[in-house]
Amino acid sequence: MSATTTTKLLDFLQKQVPADDASHKELCTTVLPALVDAVADISRILRASSAVSAVGTANAFGDDQLNVDVSSEEAVRKALDSVSCVVTASSEEDPVEKPTGCRPGWPPAHAEDDGAEEIYSVAFDPLDGSSIIAPNWSVGTILGVWRGASCLHQSPKSRQVAAVLGVYGPRTTAVVALRLPGSSPLCFEVAVGEQGADDSVVVRPDVKFAPAPFKTRYFAPANLRAAAEDESYAKLVNHYIQSKYTLRYSGGLVPDVVHALVKGHGVYVSPVTGASQAKLRRLYELFPLALIVECAGGKAIDPATGDDILEHASKDTDERAGLVCGTAEEVEFVKKSLLG
Amino acid sequence: MSATTTTKLLDFLQKQVPADDASHKELCTTVLPALVDAVADISRILRASSAVSAVGTANAFGDDQLNVDVSSEEAVRKALDSVSCVVTASSEEDPVEKPTGCRPGWPPAHAEDDGAEEIYSVAFDPLDGSSIIAPNWSVGTILGVWRGASCLHQSPKSRQVAAVLGVYGPRTTAVVALRLPGSSPLCFEVAVGEQGADDSVVVRPDVKFAPAPFKTRYFAPANLRAAAEDESYAKLVNHYIQSKYTLRYSGGLVPDVVHALVKGHGVYVSPVTGASQAKLRRLYELFPLALIVECAGGKAIDPATGDDILEHASKDTDERAGLVCGTAEEVEFVKKSLLG
Repeated sequence: MSATTTTKLLDFLQKQVPADDASHKELCTTVLPALVDAVADISRILRASSAVSAVGTANAFGDDQLNVDVSSEEAVRKALDSVSCVVTASSEEDPVEKPTGCRPGWPPAHAEDDGAEEIYSVAFDPLDGSSIIAPNWSVGTILGVWRGASCLHQSPKSRQVAAVLGVYGPRTTAVVALRLPGSSPLCFEVAVGEQGADDSVVVRPDVKFAPAPFKTRYFAPANLRAAAEDESYAKLVNHYIQSKYTLRYSGGLVPDVVHALVKGHGVYVSPVTGASQAKLRRLYELFPLALIVECAGGKAIDPATGDDILEHASKDTDERAGLVCGTAEEVEFVKKSLLG
Repeated sequence: MSATTTTKLLDFLQKQVPADDASHKELCTTVLPALVDAVADISRILRASSAVSAVGTANAFGDDQLNVDVSSEEAVRKALDSVSCVVTASSEEDPVEKPTGCRPGWPPAHAEDDGAEEIYSVAFDPLDGSSIIAPNWSVGTILGVWRGASCLHQSPKSRQVAAVLGVYGPRTTAVVALRLPGSSPLCFEVAVGEQGADDSVVVRPDVKFAPAPFKTRYFAPANLRAAAEDESYAKLVNHYIQSKYTLRYSGGLVPDVVHALVKGHGVYVSPVTGASQAKLRRLYELFPLALIVECAGGKAIDPATGDDILEHASKDTDERAGLVCGTAEEVEFVKKSLLG
């Protein structure tokens, strides 16, 4: 509800390309617009899906697939095939890094990214939140853009240069983060138009977690069942209740994190305990979310180690972890509470 | 995700009118279609509202009004003005029962509803969930249809004959309840089309809470801050955590209740404690929700007294209470926990 601007997305992205440095020109002028086009496509698919049904197949990780999962995957693949500098992609639905349609020969064996050419790989979760699709709650898309021909064995901190969260709710929005070498990190919110990037506008050019003191404090306790067996998590949740934090927990990773970003405060806690395994994929969920949160001035850590999510590379596409992210002070408090 | 049918809404509603009894013909063939038209209109308004802003006025209850609140109110009023048997209406935004545009003379002084003519009054909350509009979470509309020229001083149980919950999320849906004298209560879910009632389809013709045993149990603890000062509420929440219920709480009354309806299980708890006042309006929120929940085989009670929400008439448009609703067994458990 704060003051909003309505810069056209394409103009805003063009401004991120310095006149004397074209090293990220394609990223800003073709890759990110294509990803916003995909978000607009998925929004149309969801609006038209009057009945959401299981397609009767499972994805490579064994999750049940919905018809809308399959269509959303296709929408992102189609968008990526239209951008020649995206040479490979993989997703939660098809978790093997493969050449995109526009670069069938890529990556060549033993390809080295010498920085001479602008090439990217994209890792994405086309539709996150399948458990809340039936009741018509907001769901999202998670996209990470990496410099080079692979996202694996790469430093997330330096090689993941952009991320997009698409949010499908009463309207369609996207939160975009950019962290380019030599530039300040940037996080902004887009109202996604019916036509995609062409009629999208930037409604919040500078998404930032607010500094203390906080007017309202929000918490989102994921996997709350784990608190039945984990005393430190139970104590943490009780701390939030006793301290009168406001509960907002949809169970959709994208809307839950975006809530904190838009409100300017919040902490999302998905711990890993003895009885509950880590279930968030580093490549498709955690890395893009962590980039968004860091570019907005927040923190995103692995609750098992306390390390920043972006500190360690992923060695395969199925590596998983928990997540604590949001307002930096709140994340530090959770770290102390869970790890002592 | 269960099996779905795709009966056209207008055909489905026509079937609810017995050949030998036209006493609710207008309700089914003009009033409910007009309300679904209004839901489709509000959906369009929300999709086009790239920036949600406060309009700088307050409604009659002193809540801040958003631009989308005002437009949503207008959409419902316009729909009601098109239906000649709806003679009066009032809403949370304009809480005085007034004649609608099509019947400026109604109700005549000392009007008696002798049942000879089919006339209705509508009480509604055009857009519920303003705190979660900015982050683009699902929000809703609440509509109650009453037999006669007024909703006040009337038995909700016998006079409120229909209710509609509009849900604005990735797609637009509506849950509709009908409880006509001499017929079985009915609750069904509609996929709302772009054109309104004309291209809407019934996707779940029989929305019902599931019988025990429950596969997954859900809880939605509203006003959780109250647990800091109310031991019985704190104990109840701890019971859900220890019993490994799944948390889903968006903070939007419509999506939270619809979640339970679509999943077939759930309990929504908004208690009233010494430190926290009742804030849900009987006429605009509680009565329509309670009708929906009861028609789906659930229970909706006032946590302060344990009485059914529909047991007592509202004497003015601002009467408020708490709410416990959902799966009948769960509501009984909460009643015992909070009232002893």
